[in-house]
Amino acid sequence: MNGAESLVKTFLAGGLDVCFANPGTSEMHFVAALDSHPEMRCILSLFEGGVTGAADGYFRMSGKPAATLLHLAPGFGNGYANVHNARKGHSAMINVVGEHADYHLKFDAPLKGDIEGVTRSVSDWVKLSMDALAVAQDGAEAIRAATARNGQIATLVLPANTAWSEAEGPVDPLPPVALHRPRPDQIAAAAAALTEPGAALFIGGAAAFGPLARLAGKIARKTGCRLMADYFLPRIERGEGAVDIECLHYPVLENVEILKDVKHLVLLGAGQPVAFFAYPDRPSTPEPADCRMVDLCGPTMDIAWTLQTLIVATGAEQAEPALLSLDVPELPTGELTLAKVGQALAALLPEGAIIANEAVTAGADVIPPTRTARNHDLLYNPGGAIGAALPLAVGAAVACPDRKVIAPTGDGSAMYTLQSLWTMAREQLDMTVLIFANRGYQILRAELANVGVSHVGRNAERMFNVEGPELDWVALSQGHGVPARRVQDMESFADAFRAAMETPGPKLIEIVC
Amino acid sequence: MNGAESLVKTFLAGGLDVCFANPGTSEMHFVAALDSHPEMRCILSLFEGGVTGAADGYFRMSGKPAATLLHLAPGFGNGYANVHNARKGHSAMINVVGEHADYHLKFDAPLKGDIEGVTRSVSDWVKLSMDALAVAQDGAEAIRAATARNGQIATLVLPANTAWSEAEGPVDPLPPVALHRPRPDQIAAAAAALTEPGAALFIGGAAAFGPLARLAGKIARKTGCRLMADYFLPRIERGEGAVDIECLHYPVLENVEILKDVKHLVLLGAGQPVAFFAYPDRPSTPEPADCRMVDLCGPTMDIAWTLQTLIVATGAEQAEPALLSLDVPELPTGELTLAKVGQALAALLPEGAIIANEAVTAGADVIPPTRTARNHDLLYNPGGAIGAALPLAVGAAVACPDRKVIAPTGDGSAMYTLQSLWTMAREQLDMTVLIFANRGYQILRAELANVGVSHVGRNAERMFNVEGPELDWVALSQGHGVPARRVQDMESFADAFRAAMETPGPKLIEIVC
Repeated sequence: MNGAESLVKTFLAGGLDVCFANPGTSEMHFVAALDSHPEMRCILSLFEGGVTGAADGYFRMSGKPAATLLHLAPGFGNGYANVHNARKGHSAMINVVGEHADYHLKFDAPLKGDIEGVTRSVSDWVKLSMDALAVAQDGAEAIRAATARNGQIATLVLPANTAWSEAEGPVDPLPPVALHRPRPDQIAAAAAALTEPGAALFIGGAAAFGPLARLAGKIARKTGCRLMADYFLPRIERGEGAVDIECLHYPVLENVEILKDVKHLVLLGAGQPVAFFAYPDRPSTPEPADCRMVDLCGPTMDIAWTLQTLIVATGAEQAEPALLSLDVPELPTGELTLAKVGQALAALLPEGAIIANEAVTAGADVIPPTRTARNHDLLYNPGGAIGAALPLAVGAAVACPDRKVIAPTGDGSAMYTLQSLWTMAREQLDMTVLIFANRGYQILRAELANVGVSHVGRNAERMFNVEGPELDWVALSQGHGVPARRVQDMESFADAFRAAMETPGPKLIEIVC
Repeated sequence: MNGAESLVKTFLAGGLDVCFANPGTSEMHFVAALDSHPEMRCILSLFEGGVTGAADGYFRMSGKPAATLLHLAPGFGNGYANVHNARKGHSAMINVVGEHADYHLKFDAPLKGDIEGVTRSVSDWVKLSMDALAVAQDGAEAIRAATARNGQIATLVLPANTAWSEAEGPVDPLPPVALHRPRPDQIAAAAAALTEPGAALFIGGAAAFGPLARLAGKIARKTGCRLMADYFLPRIERGEGAVDIECLHYPVLENVEILKDVKHLVLLGAGQPVAFFAYPDRPSTPEPADCRMVDLCGPTMDIAWTLQTLIVATGAEQAEPALLSLDVPELPTGELTLAKVGQALAALLPEGAIIANEAVTAGADVIPPTRTARNHDLLYNPGGAIGAALPLAVGAAVACPDRKVIAPTGDGSAMYTLQSLWTMAREQLDMTVLIFANRGYQILRAELANVGVSHVGRNAERMFNVEGPELDWVALSQGHGVPARRVQDMESFADAFRAAMETPGPKLIEIVC
């Protein structure tokens, strides 16, 4: 067998059986190896941002890394923004990036680039695999690197002749890397801090959903501390039966207000909260000056062990976490407003839904009402590079074929990776895209004011609005093969959304707002 | 004035008056500064690949750099592939990349990334502008760096507080960097080599069009050498009255045949020819083993001076270059074939057209017939990262508002940067996109065979074809605001193309092939 085959077999032996791909010539032997292993599910995206964002969404919902297949430095560049987002969310991802045959690199071929420079700038682990006999071992190490520290970006650069030269065979999976844990005195100090007045347990990572969130909820109930989390979480469980977690907001001044009484902030699976951007005369971090930051367990450490140990240290074994109860509004009618769309979403959201949210401005009104809807997971974009929602939703839908996936997104954000619509259609993924068509980068209008600029003239206006012409999202969606509807009042929104929830397959709803 | 204003004023003083942009929050003060300087033309793209590719096309057709405005490391990442292409084509480009305020960088904010790593991996010059008092000087140096060596990628990283802090004022343009020139003995050696049997003058850069191409043609006529150039040229003049330049092909084995009798290859404005990719059992370079490579003047050296000096050294002052004569075919009718589309293009191409070609497979049939059409410029993609044609065409149309711009592209290639359609509509650019809808990555089918793989199974087939569903380019185009037609026979193609040439503004023709 050749190097490519030994790599694919190694991936499959390591449990890596989904590959999001946008290959080119230098990856042809890897493609041939995938071709002879139909147990590897290959999913084509027509743009690399769709590839890397889907791998991120797949990890968030399955807990397993996916492979990506990318073409040389420019192909990785196209996928860069969503690798960045995945890295910030501590997702595991294994990028296979084709490279020229090593002996061809001394020439200045058109596609030759600084592949090591661009990949290292956003990867936790990079290996240039220069030998077909060693590539299987490199692949096993890539899996280990990707799954270390709760999830990392591992990038394997695969020269064409490493792929096509003769190899020996696959290698077995390597033992995983052990996670770092806090020391006993840190556990004791955190347990003591949580019982103080003004204490908050600030959670992230796997503590924000599922059984670990319940452990965090027990600790909060027993110690009387607030249970809090950041705004841009990779995944949070919400709705009926979910643990009641108080989340920060986007604007830093609102977070200053939210945190004003916090004296002890215990970080567990999370870094310290920080303002999304710096602004003149606003703080970079929202906590009060006299707040003590207790860095118990960072997002790359052993979150499950820390929670279990803290349960014992706080005596919270028998405590009942505060859970959210079902509270859905009446279905609103009449004129379409963002708040009413949020209420309608809350009313109609099916049990087990996954919301991949990138409605940057509209979301402030649309997302809050869903907090007490039926139980669901909400995915934010912890890296902030827009163009994440559609690819994330693709990956989530591949990971969870039995759950409805909903992707609310601004029109500006969706444009960066609209090619993901085609992948939804090809794979017939059960997902619904909600485009909030506010005809511009609304967030920038607010941000211009935030940095102290009040007047908007022609040059700025033409960089904020997406008008002249307006985008026709129904046409864009249908052009990619996804059925679409435009809605302008609440009745037609409710009709369209209910129909989407009742029938499988991809749909898009353009919400004129 | 603040740093951003001093930078914009410095740019304008240096002749930099076009800015392709996709800004975000960290660039708001720069946007405000652009806003108060309407003499800077700001052109929004809804994806950063459209920004950087347009700056490339603008330089190729105007000889002047444009600025780009990009948002942090992920925004630069989205523009990476077309920066790569521009760099390979030796285009000048000045990227302004917003960064967090410097004091905010010690925190792990969502959008914080390794901005220096990603920008350095594809820029010739990078400066982190850490001081509002110095940013104007940095801007002047960026212009000098971008215009050095015939065109480079200069990237200025602009922290938000550098933009918003108080500055003194703009600075005057810096004197340009002198170009390197060959030594007199190298000129003499090249002049002698060109008169030998089997000599070829292999030109590139500014020698492939306009007055410098005529100088190259004189030398060829006088010395009797072949006048040749690479396939993927950034710009070549063709058609009636253009100098007759023999171009290489894409497949390396065809180039081996073309070059088999060449004994002396004199490089002037060009690097040595190299295979696009390495393949098992095929050479990396096409020249015969006994060919002497005479590296007279690389693409970053003084091409004009070298040609003028070589004219004297070869005594070619009075020689008449061989020019192409007008030879247009009859307008073909009936069933649509790629060769017939090429003939129709040749018959209908207006004087002074600009063709930005990225029809990777279809182009092999479509482009050759236009060689003897009316005089025009043809832009290829010297970096090979697909997704260049639409952005390049945007930039060319901005640079040359009085010329018709035509962008033939495969459907696979066009998908990477289809958002450029919206910019065409917003700016009402006089351009026509030709989509060759072959429903797949045709080039990969050929490349799979090139690397020796003959069987195509399900996984490979699903990575090569763009079917199930087919893309509807008429809907995609109209969704972006560009009128579109689908054609399936020669009469309707000729109708649609003629109409596009006779009326201004953007159009798209989907050619089902």
